[in-house]
Amino acid sequence: MSQFGVIGLAVMGKNLALNVHNHGFSVSGFSIDKPEVDAFAKYEDDKLTACYTWEDFVASLEKPRKILIQIMAGRPVDETIKKLLPLLDKGDILIDGGNSNFHDTTRRCEELAQSGIHFIGMGVSGGEEGALNGPALMPGGDEEAYNEVAPILEAIAAKTPEGRPCVSYIGPSSSGHYVKMVHNGIEYAIMQEFSEVYDILSQVAGKSNDEMSEIFDSWNKGLVPSYLTEITTAVLKQKDDLTSDHIIDHIFNEASYKGTGNWMLEDGVSLGAPISVVAEAVIARFMSKATTRQEHPEVTVKEDTPELIAALEKSLQLAQAVAYAQGFQQLTMAAKAYDWNLRYPSIAQNWEAGCIIRSAMLKDIENAYEKDATISVLFQDPYFKSLMENNLPALRQVIAVAASAGLPTPTLSASLNYLESIFNDNLPANLIQGQRDYFGAHTYKRNDRPGTYHMEWYEEK
Amino acid sequence: MSQFGVIGLAVMGKNLALNVHNHGFSVSGFSIDKPEVDAFAKYEDDKLTACYTWEDFVASLEKPRKILIQIMAGRPVDETIKKLLPLLDKGDILIDGGNSNFHDTTRRCEELAQSGIHFIGMGVSGGEEGALNGPALMPGGDEEAYNEVAPILEAIAAKTPEGRPCVSYIGPSSSGHYVKMVHNGIEYAIMQEFSEVYDILSQVAGKSNDEMSEIFDSWNKGLVPSYLTEITTAVLKQKDDLTSDHIIDHIFNEASYKGTGNWMLEDGVSLGAPISVVAEAVIARFMSKATTRQEHPEVTVKEDTPELIAALEKSLQLAQAVAYAQGFQQLTMAAKAYDWNLRYPSIAQNWEAGCIIRSAMLKDIENAYEKDATISVLFQDPYFKSLMENNLPALRQVIAVAASAGLPTPTLSASLNYLESIFNDNLPANLIQGQRDYFGAHTYKRNDRPGTYHMEWYEEK
Repeated sequence: MSQFGVIGLAVMGKNLALNVHNHGFSVSGFSIDKPEVDAFAKYEDDKLTACYTWEDFVASLEKPRKILIQIMAGRPVDETIKKLLPLLDKGDILIDGGNSNFHDTTRRCEELAQSGIHFIGMGVSGGEEGALNGPALMPGGDEEAYNEVAPILEAIAAKTPEGRPCVSYIGPSSSGHYVKMVHNGIEYAIMQEFSEVYDILSQVAGKSNDEMSEIFDSWNKGLVPSYLTEITTAVLKQKDDLTSDHIIDHIFNEASYKGTGNWMLEDGVSLGAPISVVAEAVIARFMSKATTRQEHPEVTVKEDTPELIAALEKSLQLAQAVAYAQGFQQLTMAAKAYDWNLRYPSIAQNWEAGCIIRSAMLKDIENAYEKDATISVLFQDPYFKSLMENNLPALRQVIAVAASAGLPTPTLSASLNYLESIFNDNLPANLIQGQRDYFGAHTYKRNDRPGTYHMEWYEEK
Repeated sequence: MSQFGVIGLAVMGKNLALNVHNHGFSVSGFSIDKPEVDAFAKYEDDKLTACYTWEDFVASLEKPRKILIQIMAGRPVDETIKKLLPLLDKGDILIDGGNSNFHDTTRRCEELAQSGIHFIGMGVSGGEEGALNGPALMPGGDEEAYNEVAPILEAIAAKTPEGRPCVSYIGPSSSGHYVKMVHNGIEYAIMQEFSEVYDILSQVAGKSNDEMSEIFDSWNKGLVPSYLTEITTAVLKQKDDLTSDHIIDHIFNEASYKGTGNWMLEDGVSLGAPISVVAEAVIARFMSKATTRQEHPEVTVKEDTPELIAALEKSLQLAQAVAYAQGFQQLTMAAKAYDWNLRYPSIAQNWEAGCIIRSAMLKDIENAYEKDATISVLFQDPYFKSLMENNLPALRQVIAVAASAGLPTPTLSASLNYLESIFNDNLPANLIQGQRDYFGAHTYKRNDRPGTYHMEWYEEK
């Protein structure tokens, strides 16, 4: 009998199953795609079983059964649950490890609770390599069921530099998939920030690909130690296999997307979350497809100074912090709206290794929320407040340079505008309220006395 | 017998009914709120009938009946339709003039078509004053039914400076409410742009409220002739009735919203529309509520020069054009996605008077789409291309100044970044594609040969 089962044996499912197996647990694997099972069967031993039918698979598992569904999100998950239900017993545990929309997960939690089946919606990040060697896991749903599977999940998860597992119970219902959605929105944001900094390094500072690779490498040891810095270093120095050029110069500059960044933006809008950097990153990908391509004039503003490079490093560090800050801000608003008790330090810890947005800064974020989980904005924390104060002049300078040079910086601009706004008691929204009262009698509040007012505006039109 | 009926006699419904009546048509009014009917009854004459029951109201109308529903959007509209249906005859025409979500309108079109009732979802803009004296109307749905009511709608609509009515058939299904939604998103965008320019005028150029009022008045006669310029002039010079100050300095700077701007953003995201300025305007309103207010340090960058004022005028003109351009870009993407044949010149004309976003520039937009309705981006039109080329240096300068001064400019920045991107064949999205292929084997396209590629990245991690 196996201690754990995996349905779906494409690269993610297969690698997660092997990861479980490599940590000494017995595992069964099943897929409706026979060749996937055949490939999995090659790993068979006394602790790994390949199953060709739903019945064999379910029968091969210890009770309460612990089944990870690792297939394409959407309808296939519902179909899989429908197939499984008659074969399961009360108390069995289903884990959906796909990139499911959190609304679907909410519905499935409710439906399965009625059948006495425990359901865990779990975000998984780290790609195929992470799945095999240590992913970041974001499980939400039934806490009792989580405790049953925790030993396995903690074993297979990535470990922080201090050796703590990148998995912990996120919260009830769809909160696990929600946190993964926010992870992906942050990922969009930070990746776009990197691309804008790359653009300035290349077009304003005139750096070569190899020089840029070295710069990112130095930042990885400097102010921006992160997985994305590391892989940017690698991507920029990679030689093409079809020409003698660097591959970066031959990759077509149209960014693809699968939708989880969009989902974060959609829910952020419904919550009123000020997630401008995520919005700009999502829209920048749209723009890369929508642009009406014409030859871009040579950038004439040139500046290749150590000061600009240093300002870019500080700007990227700060903009990265804004991306995380907006993500956590949406999480705090979601927790309130959906009545979830989210543990922000644990979420930060879950992201410290294994996932795409892992970085040294997440430890600082963990510390910030460990000290005070009630902050609504990350930059209220003293460490981040001082980071903001130290790096803001650099970001202002970079935006001014990019604007003069005519280079688009949607996420760097949004980062700056967010920071200039988030503590600002002097935003010009009073004009908007005045206009709204003028044309629609929408009323306004005053800054010097309570109540709601409507002005009898001069009729001089 | 009345030629037209109105359900809902709050200020919008009452004023629209009076507008119909003032143009010589006979009109019946009904509301489930008796005091509204009582107030309406005071206008009674041989061409105006106040009705106290559903039955009396329906019986008072000529066939085919033409009924405008002007009530709160959402469930009340469905309840009203349910009440009406048993009383109507095939061929009767219902018009929903509220701010309905276009998804609801799509559903209602389909439901009512099964009952043989014609349905028109109609956007109405212009506030209470416009309702009485000439609103902008955006009717979509059944074209045959539109032709039946066109004489009345054309009579009551606002008129362009050339005397053409600000109403025309928009397209099938919910396209009328969709166009109104886009109107409102553009309205959010332009209002936020005004507030940012006001902020720079006030804090960098140090202008007084009266000076700013005069500046906006001169722009209204200069590069930015529009209703919003006109009312900004009025709002800035308005004296408070409770203090001796200008009211603008006592309006609390927290912007309210009702959601139609959010709806545009939500659908824009699902379509992949690069509507960054609308996104930033929506988020700026969120931010005005989310900001953790601390006293804002005095702005130390000061510049009160005619050059800066001129650059601000050009920037506002160009940013306003970007707001319209993004709106029309979303409309072209929606037309394709929803299979609507939208007539862009008519939509521009509908907005040339009566509505909140009316401006002289809409005539230029009408001309642009009249010349070539196939452009995907407004700035492909020669007039707007040259406007962009002329004003871009000013907008770049303004962003650089605002960045240095530490003033947030979310929509002005987004306008600039949009313009720097929309014809740019050199966007840095190649780095994003490289990163995605590195960590997720997501593949990429090349710029020098067809096909889809995956790189075997150096494993030097």
